Amino acid sequence: MINTFKKLKDRGALVHNITNYVTVNDCANILLAAGASPLMADDKDEVEEIVSISSALYINIGTLNKRTIESMVIAGKHANKVGIPVVLDPVGMGASALRNKAVEKLIEEVDFTVVKGNMSEIKGLFSKSKNTGGVDVKDEDIVHENSIEEAGKFAMKVADTMKTIVVITGKVDIIASSSEVAYVKNGHAIMSRITGTGCMLGSLIAAYCGANTEECFSGACTAVAHMGLAGEIAADLVQENGEGTGSFRTRLIDWIYLIDEKRMKEDTKIEVCK
Amino acid sequence: MINTFKKLKDRGALVHNITNYVTVNDCANILLAAGASPLMADDKDEVEEIVSISSALYINIGTLNKRTIESMVIAGKHANKVGIPVVLDPVGMGASALRNKAVEKLIEEVDFTVVKGNMSEIKGLFSKSKNTGGVDVKDEDIVHENSIEEAGKFAMKVADTMKTIVVITGKVDIIASSSEVAYVKNGHAIMSRITGTGCMLGSLIAAYCGANTEECFSGACTAVAHMGLAGEIAADLVQENGEGTGSFRTRLIDWIYLIDEKRMKEDTKIEVCK
Amino acid sequence: MINTFKKLKDRGALVHNITNYVTVNDCANILLAAGASPLMADDKDEVEEIVSISSALYINIGTLNKRTIESMVIAGKHANKVGIPVVLDPVGMGASALRNKAVEKLIEEVDFTVVKGNMSEIKGLFSKSKNTGGVDVKDEDIVHENSIEEAGKFAMKVADTMKTIVVITGKVDIIASSSEVAYVKNGHAIMSRITGTGCMLGSLIAAYCGANTEECFSGACTAVAHMGLAGEIAADLVQENGEGTGSFRTRLIDWIYLIDEKRMKEDTKIEVCK
Repeated sequence: MINTFKKLKDRGALVHNITNYVTVNDCANILLAAGASPLMADDKDEVEEIVSISSALYINIGTLNKRTIESMVIAGKHANKVGIPVVLDPVGMGASALRNKAVEKLIEEVDFTVVKGNMSEIKGLFSKSKNTGGVDVKDEDIVHENSIEEAGKFAMKVADTMKTIVVITGKVDIIASSSEVAYVKNGHAIMSRITGTGCMLGSLIAAYCGANTEECFSGACTAVAHMGLAGEIAADLVQENGEGTGSFRTRLIDWIYLIDEKRMKEDTKIEVCK
Repeated sequence: MINTFKKLKDRGALVHNITNYVTVNDCANILLAAGASPLMADDKDEVEEIVSISSALYINIGTLNKRTIESMVIAGKHANKVGIPVVLDPVGMGASALRNKAVEKLIEEVDFTVVKGNMSEIKGLFSKSKNTGGVDVKDEDIVHENSIEEAGKFAMKVADTMKTIVVITGKVDIIASSSEVAYVKNGHAIMSRITGTGCMLGSLIAAYCGANTEECFSGACTAVAHMGLAGEIAADLVQENGEGTGSFRTRLIDWIYLIDEKRMKEDTKIEVCK
Repeated sequence: MINTFKKLKDRGALVHNITNYVTVNDCANILLAAGASPLMADDKDEVEEIVSISSALYINIGTLNKRTIESMVIAGKHANKVGIPVVLDPVGMGASALRNKAVEKLIEEVDFTVVKGNMSEIKGLFSKSKNTGGVDVKDEDIVHENSIEEAGKFAMKVADTMKTIVVITGKVDIIASSSEVAYVKNGHAIMSRITGTGCMLGSLIAAYCGANTEECFSGACTAVAHMGLAGEIAADLVQENGEGTGSFRTRLIDWIYLIDEKRMKEDTKIEVCK
């Protein structure tokens, strides 16, 4: 993971984001903080060219519309053609037929390197059934301490079926391929009290995969751990200073920027099982 | 008002926002800070489904276009059908025929629970005449200490005619129904030196109405007082620390998150007249 | 330059922005911090009316699409007709045919008061040839201490050919007309580690030109110096406090707001050559 971390710092990675207009600024800033460069472009007439100069593509359906769905499909297919990693973030999957159909179309046409979501979104994706109540995880889908292993097995099954790496975010974050699963126990509850932590993580996964195309499982783990650790440190500072969620957002980006190799080695809580 | 305040903290409220791309991130963060959840969706093919899972709908015309106007109308009508509160924010009303026509169409087709704007926007709305010079209040429309009562009566008249609750923001904020009017004297001048305080307030009104559907007048008052008090506290901190408007924005969101029941009880300056 | 600075503080300026959805919030906040007012509107059916009530127009192609390109052309032509300054920011020029064609069309149809970009974008603009690798400057286009004069001459040549003021951002910022060139040596490397410093500068140039329509060269210099100085001060504070890029963004906006006449006089490093 440390090598993966270093490679992004050393080489950078240009990440093409087709994402929602709610948290797009946070995605750009998190990428820059981590050592990557953001590029946002969503007109179907330019996405292929933009993909061609990028190291990775991040597709997030947060505020999709019919125009951008078309661009996502074109961009995703071209990313496959030129061989760069593609990350899918099916935000609010299950909340509308438009989202479900868009995701179905995307999965059919594009081979995703990583698919990331909360448990409700990943279940929705897997079953293609309508089951979310917005963009938050449903209560019954929350993964508790005693159901982690079960959730890990489910993630591996999804990964195997969909031939992708699966990232399920929650109290414990799960990263799974068909052959291994990792659990990251960094992070803090306040991360869900600002918008965009999920989207920022999606962009960051794309960045680490873009800088480490041969090791995307490690890239996904590194992104999750980097984000979780930054969240933890930021949450501590916010509490110490009697601040709230506005400051938390600022400090989260600060710490994506400030965390160094030593800190990554010492303070990330990551467990990989084969 | 304290009950209204508590209900949002306790129950939450999923707020569907069809809003501008300038301040949409601030709206999402203010909702999360107050205990609500944001959802942004503006494709006409999904807004009805999104409204169906939401507690309230917020429509803001800040960066409207023909595609989103159509979505606003569809969403607003569906919100009426399923019975959730709908808040209208006619940003820049009067600045263009497109805005005027969009608002006229919206008012014709949708029953709004609350309409919020500065005095120029509300006058524009009421008279449907072209009279604003951008998104700021015109000098001659500024409500001064000695014209508050007059402004309150005007607000009640608008509320009565339009069969809605009217919120007019300014040095003193006015909340009026056909039968009562409230004045909130919290807030600080620096609030107009950052973008989005108006939009954030609109989202917050939707959240408090969504969590208190039977008491939307109280919901609107609570939102205005909560925002004003947070602005006051944030302004003091910014001055103490020699900071500027960047920090003010961060601290404003901090204090929407940090203000508790006690603080709401003791420090909000609200006066209700029947 | 001090007069130019004061005029914006005293008179304000309403700036119409047609810009990307990534950094639009930062543009709005920087304008407000400097004493201007932002207005964002991009539907082709209203841009002429919005231009008519504005002091300046800022066009940024960061996340262009076919709908907004049309609006940019209409708005730009109308700005010429009513005689307000127009600033062009050809973000990512050279990265796609769509961007190149949009810029070609804009240059053909609109007389720009100021064109701003990094060296790669300005070269791309000048040669209309495909030569950027994203939105960042290419390595071979970075202006070094020993190539500043050469870069200044190039900028003057572009300004003369295109009959506009040219701003080339970099370690040293260059502002050139056909008859004079200025170098601003404020700023800090961390400015390129957050998104939006370029876009914010573009909006700020439009604001200073809008408040000083007869002195747009001075307006461009003032904007560049104001932004560079704010970046410098913010960078120092961030370093002192062990913060990162999240805090840098906040403090940058703080200092656009806090810098006063005295500070502008004493701490800006600007050199004008005829």
